[in-house]
Amino acid sequence: MTEIADTVDFIGGRTRLFGIVGHPIEQVRSPEMFTAEFRRRERDAILVPLHVLPDDFDATLPALMHLHNLDGLVFTIPYKVRACRLAGELGEQAQRVGAINALARGRDGRWRGEIFDGLGCVEAFRRRGIALTGRRIVLIGAGGAGAAVGVAIAGQGPRSMRVHDLDRARAEALAARIRGIDPAIDVAVAPPAIEDADVLLNVSPVGMLGDARLPIDAKSLPSRLAVFDAVVKPDRTPLIELAAACGCVTVVGREMMRGQVSRMVDYFLAGGMAAA
Amino acid sequence: MTEIADTVDFIGGRTRLFGIVGHPIEQVRSPEMFTAEFRRRERDAILVPLHVLPDDFDATLPALMHLHNLDGLVFTIPYKVRACRLAGELGEQAQRVGAINALARGRDGRWRGEIFDGLGCVEAFRRRGIALTGRRIVLIGAGGAGAAVGVAIAGQGPRSMRVHDLDRARAEALAARIRGIDPAIDVAVAPPAIEDADVLLNVSPVGMLGDARLPIDAKSLPSRLAVFDAVVKPDRTPLIELAAACGCVTVVGREMMRGQVSRMVDYFLAGGMAAA
Repeated sequence: MTEIADTVDFIGGRTRLFGIVGHPIEQVRSPEMFTAEFRRRERDAILVPLHVLPDDFDATLPALMHLHNLDGLVFTIPYKVRACRLAGELGEQAQRVGAINALARGRDGRWRGEIFDGLGCVEAFRRRGIALTGRRIVLIGAGGAGAAVGVAIAGQGPRSMRVHDLDRARAEALAARIRGIDPAIDVAVAPPAIEDADVLLNVSPVGMLGDARLPIDAKSLPSRLAVFDAVVKPDRTPLIELAAACGCVTVVGREMMRGQVSRMVDYFLAGGMAAA
Repeated sequence: MTEIADTVDFIGGRTRLFGIVGHPIEQVRSPEMFTAEFRRRERDAILVPLHVLPDDFDATLPALMHLHNLDGLVFTIPYKVRACRLAGELGEQAQRVGAINALARGRDGRWRGEIFDGLGCVEAFRRRGIALTGRRIVLIGAGGAGAAVGVAIAGQGPRSMRVHDLDRARAEALAARIRGIDPAIDVAVAPPAIEDADVLLNVSPVGMLGDARLPIDAKSLPSRLAVFDAVVKPDRTPLIELAAACGCVTVVGREMMRGQVSRMVDYFLAGGMAAA
């Protein structure tokens, strides 16, 4: 008789369930990152991939939300906007961005939604002890992730924000949102310039997966500049390499992901009541 | 900055999903047993608890079956009979018992249902090299699990089966089923007698959780008797202790569970096409 292990240490009947909903689903990193964070906090919880096809979304999601041991869902492409309607209540960031990536079951049974894409970036800066308040920010990229980062950083009270996107209308729309959040911020839509900046953020895909380009026309960077790149693959983009060579402090995409996972787990464990 | 593990080795975006559906769910052992068996076979798959309330069953199950990365479901109390209607096709055991505990997504997209409660017992005997064909069987208990065990053993061509249950109508119903499966089996409904038996099976709850009773009125057992007890807690029931003291071969409930898990994983991985 072949002996098999009767138990594994990470899952059982009492395990609380979380899921990431997307299409496609194979590429997502949330199952391992969230599950590792739950384990680090000694929680008997796991996050699993839930592959929902677009035509099934409206029927499947309410049913999933009825699973009695499911406490939260993460949303990824293409569902971040569509998932908003599942929430009985939207957090501040979600209202500003018009999308959610987290849906938490409250202790009162109410489902709350929030978006943490931008908050993860803010959290990464906080962990590094790099202030955003009062600083001059240059943001490249105003798409989904760029808008979320822009909105979250606007909430930190920077002195100025210079927003650039190849799609100028998108940059203008984000600039308008930022002005709505904090009229005291000096907002401009303009190509990136680093001469008078403190923080440079790339939230465009430039530099991703072997793309050798820089998102900015520069041979060197001033060493006082803090440089962030949201690109996760590779971990060190051409921009990050240049910044490091110039003596700048660098913050990489993986730090934003970690910051986001940590904030989202706070949110889930508090049933959507943690201050986002 | 607190460093967290970025990865865990057992779950990711490509992980195939299985679930156990029941109410309540906290007590189930399937998540750890199936997940361990998937790992033993080097499959990137996990089985999670899915707590479905009775009022939600009809709406939630079809939605779960639409999850594109979910390949199978296990059913436990109180859903084994109700789950039958979810299957497009029922296996031989399921048709005989009128219940399923496994629902597998076929490669053709068709869902197939089967019940393995009894097959797990047969598998446990097979692994121990104890023949059931041509043997004289005494079966105590003709409830849900008892009926499944009786039906599975009848399929092995025993010489005779003596069935006992405190509810005589239940014993009669099982006896009729057994005659329908194999008219050559000499079937009787009668209190357990071991004088002329080869195999004694307890599938009643007697002996469970500190119950000091034996399911049979006997001070000793003939050493040629093979004795099986479906009770899982404790692992060694009073019946198993007595049998061991009398030199009988003993087969315990945990072996039946292992046999069942192994057969069910075969079934799931073959999309419900493995010979049950």
